[in-house]
Amino acid sequence: MSKLDQKTIREASHRRPRGFLFSAVAAGIKYKGRKDLALIYSRVPAATAGVFTTNQVKAAPVLLSMERLAESGGWARAVLVNSGNANACTGQRGFIAATITSSMVADALGIDLPLVLSCSTGVIGAHLPVQAVRRAVPRLVRGLDKKDFYDVARAIMTTDTFPKVISAWGRLSGKIFNVLGFAKGAGMIAPNMATMLGFVLTDAKVAPGLLDEVLEEGVMESFNLVTVDGDTSTNDTCLMLANGLAGNPELTLESPPGEVRPFKEAVGRVLGGLSKMIAQDGEGATKLVKVRVRGARTPAEAEAAAKTIANSPLVKTAIYGQDANWGRVMAALGRAGVEFDQSQVDVYIGKVKVVRRGVGRGRAAEKKAERLLGQGEVRITVDLSLGPAEVEVLTCDLSPEYISINADYRT
Amino acid sequence: MSKLDQKTIREASHRRPRGFLFSAVAAGIKYKGRKDLALIYSRVPAATAGVFTTNQVKAAPVLLSMERLAESGGWARAVLVNSGNANACTGQRGFIAATITSSMVADALGIDLPLVLSCSTGVIGAHLPVQAVRRAVPRLVRGLDKKDFYDVARAIMTTDTFPKVISAWGRLSGKIFNVLGFAKGAGMIAPNMATMLGFVLTDAKVAPGLLDEVLEEGVMESFNLVTVDGDTSTNDTCLMLANGLAGNPELTLESPPGEVRPFKEAVGRVLGGLSKMIAQDGEGATKLVKVRVRGARTPAEAEAAAKTIANSPLVKTAIYGQDANWGRVMAALGRAGVEFDQSQVDVYIGKVKVVRRGVGRGRAAEKKAERLLGQGEVRITVDLSLGPAEVEVLTCDLSPEYISINADYRT
Repeated sequence: MSKLDQKTIREASHRRPRGFLFSAVAAGIKYKGRKDLALIYSRVPAATAGVFTTNQVKAAPVLLSMERLAESGGWARAVLVNSGNANACTGQRGFIAATITSSMVADALGIDLPLVLSCSTGVIGAHLPVQAVRRAVPRLVRGLDKKDFYDVARAIMTTDTFPKVISAWGRLSGKIFNVLGFAKGAGMIAPNMATMLGFVLTDAKVAPGLLDEVLEEGVMESFNLVTVDGDTSTNDTCLMLANGLAGNPELTLESPPGEVRPFKEAVGRVLGGLSKMIAQDGEGATKLVKVRVRGARTPAEAEAAAKTIANSPLVKTAIYGQDANWGRVMAALGRAGVEFDQSQVDVYIGKVKVVRRGVGRGRAAEKKAERLLGQGEVRITVDLSLGPAEVEVLTCDLSPEYISINADYRT
Repeated sequence: MSKLDQKTIREASHRRPRGFLFSAVAAGIKYKGRKDLALIYSRVPAATAGVFTTNQVKAAPVLLSMERLAESGGWARAVLVNSGNANACTGQRGFIAATITSSMVADALGIDLPLVLSCSTGVIGAHLPVQAVRRAVPRLVRGLDKKDFYDVARAIMTTDTFPKVISAWGRLSGKIFNVLGFAKGAGMIAPNMATMLGFVLTDAKVAPGLLDEVLEEGVMESFNLVTVDGDTSTNDTCLMLANGLAGNPELTLESPPGEVRPFKEAVGRVLGGLSKMIAQDGEGATKLVKVRVRGARTPAEAEAAAKTIANSPLVKTAIYGQDANWGRVMAALGRAGVEFDQSQVDVYIGKVKVVRRGVGRGRAAEKKAERLLGQGEVRITVDLSLGPAEVEVLTCDLSPEYISINADYRT
């Protein structure tokens, strides 16, 4: 299925949570004539959870959004997002720019300033053109509409090749609720410093404390398995807004797990789907790669092993070149900081076992595996034969296009 | 200075330690008609130190050489090296192949088996063609010669674009000693899994215990600063042989530091020179990149910060593209696991300060820096303003050629 097909199918079938409005305009922040400024708005205050970059260097909008969520106790009504400029490493002036632009939005919407959050993605170190944003805000607010979430997903793209949107729904105490998510990648997913922005909007009624928990757990099992821990950009942000318009009895930290489950599952599907799209759209990627490590002693060891393999440029380039070079998988595994016995390790490409107890199974098995490497989705499985733990990490291959995208990014 | 010029200049001016003989032949291990099997031989037993890969997956020749050095108490007379085949992930059969081929050499030379060490580099997982080696050993031993070390340096190359040879000399108690080193890279140096082999030969008289210490310290300050800790291949090996024919009174662990210093310095120059050549010849590299972090609290923090920057594919591609994209340096620094205050950080490209106290100094400074990025050697300096520690790490840029080399490596 081509990227375009996927997009079209998704576009046709989305669930829209009640009470959210969208808008995107061309503000000329970096490029002329493409939409680069977007607004997400909830008709009523929404419980809001955020997961932010762990990078020591945090962009101004990240600092601002963290501060405002702390101040409001986990509530928001609007998110202003721009592409083309990260507003990172811009010092005091950058923080003031984020404050001013979000206050323009608060004024135009007639809402309290702490309820406006801010996200940016683009080049680090350039100052945000505040005047361009000011000129665009009236149009942005006038344009708010229920249907334009695809426009928002497109406006926040940088080197993404397709907008990433997904939705899910479920029932809570008989009431139907909807979850809509969109995100931008891309960068080579791991090791990665390109900004990841994710937005999850729902009309379920969920208290801020529980919302935090659901988002944190969900991100751990999705976005954090496409990116090495700590390999986050200065701007990475994932926000979840729950405005309660589905009318279900509020879910809280005290609700029984069985009542919360439908919500968790819907959020999990949305985050998982976005993660997969981000890996698929890694810069220059030609293949989605799933690296599964099983038979590990602990989940942490499985994750460390899977991530070391998934991040190896030599493994990634072999996959790009459709070379069943499992030696590189073994070599990456060997430096993952996980103890194992090489004579107990099996390696599979797809369903083809290419290594049995640490030794290659020969050219015939490799040839079979190489046919599988020609497909759009590649699965590498390593069995350590040590214990019960397993984990799957998503990544992509490494192609020459990655280099040209990143060598020319600012020009 | 072009790579070829450098090679010619070096070739003309090498010091040869007494009593070492060299040979290289085309054994047809992988390719026809190129020399791929080499022998280093000392006329007398030489004190020998080795530093081996820390990868959990160790190639058969690594296991064999480690075992023999332990058995001999740090002595050797011959090293058999092949390219084209790593003899890694080959199980019991691979270990037997390494044992048999080295015993052929011991027989032909008429020396004790434990005094023969073994190194391999090339594709992981293929079985070593023992018959091809057997046919070549008589020619190999017949060909031993004082001058042919360049042939050895060429025979061990894989994707290296030039042979890496360097020498130094000094005086110990009035006696002149010589140190000759050669190595192969290459792979993208960091993060790296391509095999690094290094050989240091000297006629100085040095006891095994001290030789171990000098090699370990020397490698820590040279090869280990071109490769991330643990990012070693299944085959990485650095051997140092000291045959004592210079006639100096033996240096031991009990010798006063002042007496050992000339030897340490000569070895340090050789290891440092080889490291620089390896970084310069990283696969597809167009530039040597020196990343210096200063003003760190501790050397370990300086190293962690410098290596995270040096390993960032986004930083490497920006350097390839001659883009003074210091934002990527800041973002890499921020995920290095080192605490710092971003408003105290300065960044230089060459001598041009592009970031002052965490904020970019503007387009004029970047334009100046971009002219410097056009040169063959690029220096990036980060000042954390926290303490006295500093470290310099060597790496290279990341070009599209890296991908094509590694995507097509086995074909």
